[in-house]
Amino acid sequence: MDSKTPGTRHLTDAQRIDWLRLIRSDNVGPRTFRSLLNHFGSARTALERLPELARRGGAARPGRICSEDDARAELAASERLGVHLLAPDEDGYPPRLATLDDAPPLLGVKGARDVLMRPVIAIVGSRNASGAGLKFAGTLARDLGEAGFVIASGLARGIDQAAHRASLAGGTVAVLAGGHDKVYPPEHEDLLAAMVDAGGAAISEMPLGHAPRARDFPRRNRLISGMALGVVVVEAALRSGSLITARIAAEQGREVFAVPGSPLDPRAAGTNDLIKQGATLTTEASDVINAVEPIMGRPLALREPEDEPLASEPEVGDRARIVSLLGPSPISLDDLIRMAGTSPAIVRTVLLELELAGRLERHGGGLVSLV
Amino acid sequence: MDSKTPGTRHLTDAQRIDWLRLIRSDNVGPRTFRSLLNHFGSARTALERLPELARRGGAARPGRICSEDDARAELAASERLGVHLLAPDEDGYPPRLATLDDAPPLLGVKGARDVLMRPVIAIVGSRNASGAGLKFAGTLARDLGEAGFVIASGLARGIDQAAHRASLAGGTVAVLAGGHDKVYPPEHEDLLAAMVDAGGAAISEMPLGHAPRARDFPRRNRLISGMALGVVVVEAALRSGSLITARIAAEQGREVFAVPGSPLDPRAAGTNDLIKQGATLTTEASDVINAVEPIMGRPLALREPEDEPLASEPEVGDRARIVSLLGPSPISLDDLIRMAGTSPAIVRTVLLELELAGRLERHGGGLVSLV
Repeated sequence: MDSKTPGTRHLTDAQRIDWLRLIRSDNVGPRTFRSLLNHFGSARTALERLPELARRGGAARPGRICSEDDARAELAASERLGVHLLAPDEDGYPPRLATLDDAPPLLGVKGARDVLMRPVIAIVGSRNASGAGLKFAGTLARDLGEAGFVIASGLARGIDQAAHRASLAGGTVAVLAGGHDKVYPPEHEDLLAAMVDAGGAAISEMPLGHAPRARDFPRRNRLISGMALGVVVVEAALRSGSLITARIAAEQGREVFAVPGSPLDPRAAGTNDLIKQGATLTTEASDVINAVEPIMGRPLALREPEDEPLASEPEVGDRARIVSLLGPSPISLDDLIRMAGTSPAIVRTVLLELELAGRLERHGGGLVSLV
Repeated sequence: MDSKTPGTRHLTDAQRIDWLRLIRSDNVGPRTFRSLLNHFGSARTALERLPELARRGGAARPGRICSEDDARAELAASERLGVHLLAPDEDGYPPRLATLDDAPPLLGVKGARDVLMRPVIAIVGSRNASGAGLKFAGTLARDLGEAGFVIASGLARGIDQAAHRASLAGGTVAVLAGGHDKVYPPEHEDLLAAMVDAGGAAISEMPLGHAPRARDFPRRNRLISGMALGVVVVEAALRSGSLITARIAAEQGREVFAVPGSPLDPRAAGTNDLIKQGATLTTEASDVINAVEPIMGRPLALREPEDEPLASEPEVGDRARIVSLLGPSPISLDDLIRMAGTSPAIVRTVLLELELAGRLERHGGGLVSLV
């Protein structure tokens, strides 16, 4: 799953089924998927080893492993809706998205693949935006589109909607928090259809039938910023979802742009704050273009060529000591390795087992805690 | 005229008359005043030498030299209005203003002297400000006043007025472009009286009776920024006077703060642009206070202890060569010295003579041209 030249990978049908089974199995997220694939060499082998790893991690009962039939059914249903499940570096998988540590192993893509291979700017902001904010988002999206950029956003009401609408001609991508058949908000199904008809696309890492829950939106937001060169935040109150997207974008090394507003306008409090923290003040498309043009010329930052290795099987004593060091308060992996007095490979392996047993939670910044 | 500990200098009555005569004489500005005082040791000696220097500079007819009677009359009239003419480092002369190369040799001060010795923040902005801009200027001025800062501004309509009004309790200073008896705009005479009554002050470098002309305002603006730790620009269109103040402030090494606004609001175009160029985005008093607090702890940057020396009397050939190198296009002093092939002291002396003859214009950045 190492990053290669965009568009050059192609999974076999059997691989795609194995990959889908693995990522749809209990307690397997994108990072665990990658760790398992690197350690065991193939999704097939990882699937065979899952029950044992989870048992060693102390699973009360074995987690559900996605069956081959279920995976085939999802693939077939997706294809009927025009959704293709693509792996990083396959044609149509956004090249910058593929560079993330937690890039979705399979991304459901609907619409034109070429639009997903072009340089992307994300535009996000308040759902209850002001008229000025909506107008500005539209102007910015149109100008960036005319300059050759694809506009990504979250299909929400307000700024998202204005950005998508204004970039129909230039190409625009909706990043969904639920499955492709559970568009949210439902009244934007027509907008999404118009986007795809106009040569745009929609992407989702979620299975068909998955209705988005509140916690799916921050997770989705990492894809909006991750596929983009930068994220423009147009109007955002303090503690709003758009600021989470901006924070993730910065962590991902993406450019963050913010549109200023009056100190007396609560809808500008978040964006003004972003500028104070270093985001680029943005009043026109050239502010964005000037900042991202030098980046576009550089080769994509590759993910690390290989994960840190795992151990074949930790001793019982090692496992007990590591578990005893963990608790409900997050602790950093580095601290844990230091305190455990054993090899990093063993600590990582125990954590993987605990994760597959549903007992471990991973937080941002390399922190982990017991569930 | 070297910078000393603020408040410790005291001119004798005779010195004050001589200084006033020199600065009120034709073609003598603050920089020339300083150069003459440094070279000749006293204003009295400089006054005696003025006619000869101007003649050597090629003056068609001798410039007017302010008589002792006129100077005594101005001093007496000023005192009757409660205006004291103070030299840099005298008590009541703003300490930061005294550090400027072009600090007024005598500053007309009306009102409380102690307010002029305290830390100052300047607040400036549009005359035709929005309601939100006026409200913000008032809130900021009040909050900064409560934090112990004196507010300086230009007594204009709009932002200036709002800033002065809101800082009556905390102390506020009007910097005038005309003489103290020619308040502009006239309808703000009551406001100015209220400011002085409340313990504030008004300052001007202009003689009594001088009605401000358009070109006096940029000159005045250097005093607003020069006396302050920093300048906050609240609403400014592109190419507005407040932006000139911000540019001068940056050249003087003062902090520049700007209040953001919507990209669709032309009154925010100038302030947003300032932020793009590095001004500190300001939405509340703490943005200003956090930036200037470290500066307040430092000793004032002293002016150079002595000007570059002058030559006693340049050769006729030197003078002719230097004049031939000058023209209506500004040229830098450094280039001129290099091209003249003579000593820097001779070039500086010839330029001083030309200036006193009314034939030389000095521009920003050390540029000079023939009138």
